[in-house]
Amino acid sequence: MTTVVTSPALDAQAERSTALRVALLGCGTVGSEVARLLIGQAHDLQARVGRPLELVGIAVRRAGRDRAGIDPALFTTDAPALVTRDDVDLVIEVIGGIEPARSLILAALRHGKSVVTANKALLAEDGGTLFAAAEQAGVDLYFEAAVAGAIPIIRPLRESLVGDEITSVIGIVNGTTNFILDKMDSEGAGFAETLAEAQELGYAEADPTADVEAFDAAAKAAILASLAFHTRVTAGDVYREGITEVSTTDIASAREMGSVVKLLAICQLSSGDDGREQSVSVRVHPAMIPRSHPLAGVGGAYNAVFVESRSAGRLMFYGPGAGGGPTASAVLGDLVTVARNRVRGASGPGESTYAARPISPIGSVITRYHLSLEVADVAGVLAQIAQCFAEHGVSIQTVRQQGRAADAQLVIVTHRASDADLSATVDDLRDLDAVRAVTSVMRVEGE
Amino acid sequence: MTTVVTSPALDAQAERSTALRVALLGCGTVGSEVARLLIGQAHDLQARVGRPLELVGIAVRRAGRDRAGIDPALFTTDAPALVTRDDVDLVIEVIGGIEPARSLILAALRHGKSVVTANKALLAEDGGTLFAAAEQAGVDLYFEAAVAGAIPIIRPLRESLVGDEITSVIGIVNGTTNFILDKMDSEGAGFAETLAEAQELGYAEADPTADVEAFDAAAKAAILASLAFHTRVTAGDVYREGITEVSTTDIASAREMGSVVKLLAICQLSSGDDGREQSVSVRVHPAMIPRSHPLAGVGGAYNAVFVESRSAGRLMFYGPGAGGGPTASAVLGDLVTVARNRVRGASGPGESTYAARPISPIGSVITRYHLSLEVADVAGVLAQIAQCFAEHGVSIQTVRQQGRAADAQLVIVTHRASDADLSATVDDLRDLDAVRAVTSVMRVEGE
Repeated sequence: MTTVVTSPALDAQAERSTALRVALLGCGTVGSEVARLLIGQAHDLQARVGRPLELVGIAVRRAGRDRAGIDPALFTTDAPALVTRDDVDLVIEVIGGIEPARSLILAALRHGKSVVTANKALLAEDGGTLFAAAEQAGVDLYFEAAVAGAIPIIRPLRESLVGDEITSVIGIVNGTTNFILDKMDSEGAGFAETLAEAQELGYAEADPTADVEAFDAAAKAAILASLAFHTRVTAGDVYREGITEVSTTDIASAREMGSVVKLLAICQLSSGDDGREQSVSVRVHPAMIPRSHPLAGVGGAYNAVFVESRSAGRLMFYGPGAGGGPTASAVLGDLVTVARNRVRGASGPGESTYAARPISPIGSVITRYHLSLEVADVAGVLAQIAQCFAEHGVSIQTVRQQGRAADAQLVIVTHRASDADLSATVDDLRDLDAVRAVTSVMRVEGE
Repeated sequence: MTTVVTSPALDAQAERSTALRVALLGCGTVGSEVARLLIGQAHDLQARVGRPLELVGIAVRRAGRDRAGIDPALFTTDAPALVTRDDVDLVIEVIGGIEPARSLILAALRHGKSVVTANKALLAEDGGTLFAAAEQAGVDLYFEAAVAGAIPIIRPLRESLVGDEITSVIGIVNGTTNFILDKMDSEGAGFAETLAEAQELGYAEADPTADVEAFDAAAKAAILASLAFHTRVTAGDVYREGITEVSTTDIASAREMGSVVKLLAICQLSSGDDGREQSVSVRVHPAMIPRSHPLAGVGGAYNAVFVESRSAGRLMFYGPGAGGGPTASAVLGDLVTVARNRVRGASGPGESTYAARPISPIGSVITRYHLSLEVADVAGVLAQIAQCFAEHGVSIQTVRQQGRAADAQLVIVTHRASDADLSATVDDLRDLDAVRAVTSVMRVEGE
């Protein structure tokens, strides 16, 4: 192949002194930090892109608010007009949520603007539509900030590991729930109390649903699984359990096993060794992991993503999962990349869904389980309980008794079993007269 | 800016079924794994690139050796002819060393081939020449495998964090020395004995100089510093101390402080707060770090790189630092990226040295120190020793005495001081009659 001199390269030369013009959608914690850095680090950004980056407009819901350090003339409430302006080259979306973000991003892409977004919810719900619009317009859609804040994980999955076969991605991708679980572990406090503390400290929102019910983590899991396995996974494909049911007893029980409870986003490729098509399972739920696992030491509001692949082996990426600074860092990294691409007349990788793998239902997922049962009388009931597990082919690894006689509690850890078999076992356990309650069922991962 | 339809995109469409042709230089542990994966994963690689990748030749020193699973017809001993063949698009260099690797890479670049290399020594010695040749030819030079094996660190530094200001990069980037130090820590064995064990297990080479004298780590430090700080740093700019002088006493002493000894590659940007130009310091040496530091838990032959930046905060990247599989994963990730760029008529980021920062001499580096001294009589000599530190403005944090009278040992940990002041202090200590020997001086980092 001969070397091709492309016309965009010549254009670029002619336009070297012309700024690339940036529109910003949203000016909250992340947006205002992005604006501040775009203005404050203009010299470095220009050197890295090869052309100046000029912030030409910021779309906000309400104009007139004082935003320190940012020229008031930049603000507009007319976002649709801003993203389609002829003189805008690049659009940053940090509004979040589905609408109006989706309409604005689609309008920008269709008008030939490259887009950088931090919007995990939108990507997980309708990423396919956005990627198709970017592909059709020949522009970039970058989203490093959508998962795990400043931790570079999107680019490693899309590019660094693209020559490898990734077999699993396990992440702590929600800082709020990690902060809460970490506090419950270190202070022995209950969920409600710890959530209230996290809200006071600003680590949890007034309405904590998206975090504690794991909607946020599920959206990120969908994005990670799509990239890792070259297939489309949406938020609706992700099995999801939040942390509201995690009790101090669960955490104490994990501790006795040398484990900790973490909210994990788990994306796995089935082995497919027996010639069947490889399927993908994606789930987000609290789980016990051994303290020796690299993810166990990820404390406070930090995030980490643990990746296993055929050739590279086990990799981990660790860092702050949220916050204005870290998220702005990821947004600006993407902005420089799409701006460089624009200068070179190039575009980055698009959506890769060629593998089109089926999604495994949660029932077929195989893992280990930790169960707590309140039982009437241990001596009499253990045989019945063991029989119940055996009937569903679920093998028991350990049984531990806590308390005695009338208020006895049994803690059972199983060997690997399918979720369906375990669920059927639990249903039958609940029907036993001697079992007063199945107080907790939690998966055991990372071994 | 309007959307530009580039002619390469049209070329690419016409050539969609045509393979991109790959030449491989070297067929040792890494090369043979790259060849195996290129052939075995052809279907996936084609889907990810958009065109097939075809391995058309492998340059080796001696032909005729049986290399299981690879077509003997692919082998050639004429590497210069292979890299300049008209029908070769992409060249992978995994020979290592300076020559003939440099001449071959330059010939390939000048003939319009994009190059993927794992050659840290060459990049650290003469990367500038290679990058200039790539830039001039409008082709790519990628090198993810050159630092920390499969751990994605080059791309995160070149792209993900390119909108941020990185202030320090601290890495465990040599698996052999980490394996040795880890064994010395866990088994209490000496350096020579542990090196011999590492050699038997295949973790250290017969001639371990490049690893234990830290030449390998210094080359990687130069590459990391160049990328992090947008300036050119060569191996010669790196201050280097190996691990051959690390004693069991040092390791025991670190343990008493709640620390471990690691060979660290440390790249730092000076604060420049007082209006001076920001300079860069790059050094590789054994150091004590607290066990609570994320790098302290990196055991065995694993690598990790810890990055701090203004906006993103503290990030860590962890994984296997060497080996055929991990290195091949990094090489193939780069190969897919440069192949995609080729298909799109684009190229990735080139060398970024716009900041052109001066290199600080080691004497101006400020850190803390751990010293072991054999002294004649503690009661009598402590005042003299303290005076010696005070004269050079080095402040003592702790003094600990081990043993008594004639065979007493003093362990001193300082507050932060410049390397020059500390060295002058050590010189004066050696002149004191009561100081029999300064048995060890080690830096204390990560606090």
